[in-house]
Amino acid sequence: MSTVKRALSEQTADEILKIINSEYRAGDKIPNEMELAKSLQVSRTTIREAIKLLCAINVVEIRRGNGTFVCGNPGMIKDPMGYRFLDKHKLVRDLYEMCLLFEPEIAALAAEKAIPVLLSKLKDASKNLAASIEDYNKGLIGIIQLIQSASDFHLAIAQCCDNNTLSRFEPLIIEGLLDSYYWNASLLTRYLSKYQDDLVAAIVNKQPDKAREYMRLHLNEGKQFFM
Amino acid sequence: MSTVKRALSEQTADEILKIINSEYRAGDKIPNEMELAKSLQVSRTTIREAIKLLCAINVVEIRRGNGTFVCGNPGMIKDPMGYRFLDKHKLVRDLYEMCLLFEPEIAALAAEKAIPVLLSKLKDASKNLAASIEDYNKGLIGIIQLIQSASDFHLAIAQCCDNNTLSRFEPLIIEGLLDSYYWNASLLTRYLSKYQDDLVAAIVNKQPDKAREYMRLHLNEGKQFFM
Repeated sequence: MSTVKRALSEQTADEILKIINSEYRAGDKIPNEMELAKSLQVSRTTIREAIKLLCAINVVEIRRGNGTFVCGNPGMIKDPMGYRFLDKHKLVRDLYEMCLLFEPEIAALAAEKAIPVLLSKLKDASKNLAASIEDYNKGLIGIIQLIQSASDFHLAIAQCCDNNTLSRFEPLIIEGLLDSYYWNASLLTRYLSKYQDDLVAAIVNKQPDKAREYMRLHLNEGKQFFM
Repeated sequence: MSTVKRALSEQTADEILKIINSEYRAGDKIPNEMELAKSLQVSRTTIREAIKLLCAINVVEIRRGNGTFVCGNPGMIKDPMGYRFLDKHKLVRDLYEMCLLFEPEIAALAAEKAIPVLLSKLKDASKNLAASIEDYNKGLIGIIQLIQSASDFHLAIAQCCDNNTLSRFEPLIIEGLLDSYYWNASLLTRYLSKYQDDLVAAIVNKQPDKAREYMRLHLNEGKQFFM
């Protein structure tokens, strides 16, 4: 690849990024190669290379046969905190400690700030977690799916805060914690549902102190696993 | 480069990583090329390639003419949160909000957990910040150095918690915030020193509630800048 070509694909990636930042949101499909080539007046090959660069930094993802979509947290790479370089045993305890520290505050802020559209997403995530616990107990889904629902529930709470950085930190705390632990599944399902409805009600009813307290009670149920 | 050679340098990088994880800490100098080649029984070229791979993921850094050193937060890359993809104006407000949420809790945990060696590092960081403020007011240092001291002070508090993940999150919050803001310097120095001594005293004297409260008061002084 010549230097000029490379520079052009990099410039094009920057142009596409600007378009994404101004017109698209996470999960949106962006225009196809041909449309981008036309509007940016470069070749389809250049577009293809630019898209590859944007894939590499997790700005877009190509879903084969379906198109190119904006990623959830553009620019965040896999394991951005370098957890793989930390001692696994201490990592679980550290993440749990951080979780105890931050999650109650996040729940309280969610109760202060959440607007109806975010609250309805939270209610959906809560229903989904409850359903996943049932499905898991019936053997219909596996542990990974259950953990994903639990993680989505915490993310939905963080998203109620309408704070981009919190939404990016949240998965690093909860998913990190849930991923790092080797689960005793029957205990897990009991733990996951504890105080869940009270917590959601407190956020929906805009009661920050109650939300903080229920999150604390919920997390304390997990002490047996993580410490 | 042949596939076999590449695979060998990757394997070697893994071996060096294991050695680093078990025997070295951040800031330590690791054995030189010749020593590593001898102990791992590969060529110096392979060692060189393996070290390059470890540099790329920020596990070690080569200081020219001085040797190869273990990085502060191995595995964390530049801008791991992808802040560059977020709207700058909202980013400052989001980071400040997150800061208000997390920093008081971090200060309280620091007061609970800090052991003498960490407390003495905190006192050093606090003295250093006080000196930087003076130097800055006299025109002896620039804004970047001042901000670095302020960031180091917050990091020293987080490090009192003896929690690896908190120490990795902290710079992403405070440095992110301080980096994102265009500073009115004369106001900044007044803000930075407010409640600093009280905060340090509360942590040293193991008073979590006071530490939480002084951090809150300190951060509230910054409201004029960030909101």
